[in-house]
Amino acid sequence: MEALGVIVEYNPFHNGHLYHLQQSKNLTNPDVVIAVMSGQFLQRGEPALVSKWERTKMALLNGIDIVVELPYAFATQKAEVFATGAVSILSELRVDSFCFGSEQGNIEDFNRTVQLMGEKSDPYHSSVQKYIKEGNSYPKASSLAFSETFQNENVIDLTQPNNILGFHYVKAVLELGSPIQPFTIGRTTAGYHDEQLYPSNIASATAIRKHLFETNREIQHVQDYVPAPTFSVLQQIKSFHRWEDYYSLLKYKILCSTPEQLRTFYEVEEGIEYRLQECMKKSKTFQEFMTMLKTKRYTWTRLQRMCTHILTNTTKDEMKRVTEKKEYSYVRLLGMSKAGQHYLREIKKDITIPIISNVASFSDDGLALDKKATIAYSIPLSEPERSAFIHKEFSQPPIRFDEELRKFV
Amino acid sequence: MEALGVIVEYNPFHNGHLYHLQQSKNLTNPDVVIAVMSGQFLQRGEPALVSKWERTKMALLNGIDIVVELPYAFATQKAEVFATGAVSILSELRVDSFCFGSEQGNIEDFNRTVQLMGEKSDPYHSSVQKYIKEGNSYPKASSLAFSETFQNENVIDLTQPNNILGFHYVKAVLELGSPIQPFTIGRTTAGYHDEQLYPSNIASATAIRKHLFETNREIQHVQDYVPAPTFSVLQQIKSFHRWEDYYSLLKYKILCSTPEQLRTFYEVEEGIEYRLQECMKKSKTFQEFMTMLKTKRYTWTRLQRMCTHILTNTTKDEMKRVTEKKEYSYVRLLGMSKAGQHYLREIKKDITIPIISNVASFSDDGLALDKKATIAYSIPLSEPERSAFIHKEFSQPPIRFDEELRKFV
Repeated sequence: MEALGVIVEYNPFHNGHLYHLQQSKNLTNPDVVIAVMSGQFLQRGEPALVSKWERTKMALLNGIDIVVELPYAFATQKAEVFATGAVSILSELRVDSFCFGSEQGNIEDFNRTVQLMGEKSDPYHSSVQKYIKEGNSYPKASSLAFSETFQNENVIDLTQPNNILGFHYVKAVLELGSPIQPFTIGRTTAGYHDEQLYPSNIASATAIRKHLFETNREIQHVQDYVPAPTFSVLQQIKSFHRWEDYYSLLKYKILCSTPEQLRTFYEVEEGIEYRLQECMKKSKTFQEFMTMLKTKRYTWTRLQRMCTHILTNTTKDEMKRVTEKKEYSYVRLLGMSKAGQHYLREIKKDITIPIISNVASFSDDGLALDKKATIAYSIPLSEPERSAFIHKEFSQPPIRFDEELRKFV
Repeated sequence: MEALGVIVEYNPFHNGHLYHLQQSKNLTNPDVVIAVMSGQFLQRGEPALVSKWERTKMALLNGIDIVVELPYAFATQKAEVFATGAVSILSELRVDSFCFGSEQGNIEDFNRTVQLMGEKSDPYHSSVQKYIKEGNSYPKASSLAFSETFQNENVIDLTQPNNILGFHYVKAVLELGSPIQPFTIGRTTAGYHDEQLYPSNIASATAIRKHLFETNREIQHVQDYVPAPTFSVLQQIKSFHRWEDYYSLLKYKILCSTPEQLRTFYEVEEGIEYRLQECMKKSKTFQEFMTMLKTKRYTWTRLQRMCTHILTNTTKDEMKRVTEKKEYSYVRLLGMSKAGQHYLREIKKDITIPIISNVASFSDDGLALDKKATIAYSIPLSEPERSAFIHKEFSQPPIRFDEELRKFV
């Protein structure tokens, strides 16, 4: 069986995702599509709008055959680590190809850029250091160094968020020595950060979430921008998750910790622990807190990721133990179609790591972070929903979808 | 000037407290009365119904001249440590006498019991160990050992909660070699744990709080049981604090920590960290959690204190640093009358430790715990009240009361 991989957040699954999925299938003609999907917290350091289980349902209903979880230790990281984690899992699951969306839209440009970057690695990294010393954030410094190093070369535009991710995907494939064939598809209409709902039926996930929050979840207005199955899942959801719901917890965590304790959390560096406490004392909302905290040196996204790690109580030591390993110790299965189930049976003999269906009986440093993330994610819910939500993390078997009958079984 | 000391929680100040205060004044005829009062969390491991500032107002309005804070490191401890902390502060403040309520009501009985206990310390402690090994809680084992050791002696009944505290007060005076003269007054009508509102105008603080919570703060019903000034303070309060308001935070803290992290918190011993997590996963309210957690080995109060330390993020190391010191490094002033102010000026030349009016500029391990306690205490409030409440902890000068004009100045 031919397998295609995609790396996704589906926050929530919208028409742009469906377009990408259909184009990817047209390009590679796979028997099954495997999605590596982030769990409760996402790459920009935010809680997912709805839980990983709801997003798994959306994925299965929209044509994904297997959904596996990108562990917290990779899902909430800068592009490089995120990409390495995601591509490694696809590699473990023996996909033949994988396809990502990008602003550039041409895989040869990515291959050439990665190759050139390999050749000019030293001058590039010196240049990055120079720009960081000048007080720029890491992404800004990388972008400036990139322009400087490759000013006369035909390279991709690495100021575009999806190009950056794509670059790291292609680089990860090369570094892992993986036989996976990468493809890319140009993104249409809506940019990653766009906050508008366009008149066409494609809008960014950011715009869709913004609309849901601002209108106090009048979900009928997003109906035009999401596939019907997504809409039916959204209709059944009682509450959407956003940072403001976690502000009390974050305030508690930041102000009830000593600076020394804050420093143990992943990404809390360079004395920012004092600034975290000062800004938290003065703020009354998450937005206000972040606006005070923001400096030229730190991107908003990096600060949000830092807050995510504080919220989930994730220390530098814990993160190191997980990301230092060169190999995954498990893949967590969230859902599968009948075709997906068939594929997994087929590859079982070829793969060495366990595919986890029931986490209660499996102990692992990486999985421990996912469990904590689910607990932190659940706290703003009311009882008895919260207890049920936590229980689900430890008891829910993978969601099974019968694609012929179009229903969960 | 003659000073009388009292050791109080005033949670809230009720007619029984007023009776005790008046009797104490009659007995010792002081110029001023100094109350050492617990802050936001109390000896039974509970958040105070209302903040220390509101309770300071109640105390001043009802005839106390100086209110100082019993630091968190002593206020949330078993009787022995609580008593040592409170008596030490009274000693620092040069009181001539202090007076406590007790079931026994006769100071000679306390003196004799403390003396006998000193003489039979070894057999008593062996007996305590024996009963603990049999699976009894520490208080139960102490009580059994006490009966066994002093079965034929004329000693006080140390199964009574106020007798236990009184015993430790008198013992602390002796051990500190303090010249303070202790007095006791028999308690009338309402027992410490009584939950009934009696037809007389005296009810326990427990009964008053229970009534306020169960009737959803219909405060007119408690009017008969509290002095008028208490009632007027209670009328202005928007929300009363109780453990259930902190259940989400406690759940977050217990479930997002590793067992190793839980073990760093004060009083988390003997593998109870696993039990804390198991019971927390299964419970939906604080009451349910505590009921599951309770065993013969642990008293409800000890478990609540453990939860308080987890909630306030108080570690064994932090607590050790504060309680190991033989001397206080400060006394925190919460409020004073004109007479109180006069007294403080008078003793200033005799005392060596600073009396803190403004905590913002004072750094101390013990005070750090009080600051954290206030932050944890504030989290269930809504914004902007919560930010104002936290700001107050760092900026509020002592409350000044003009007893002649009967108003705050």
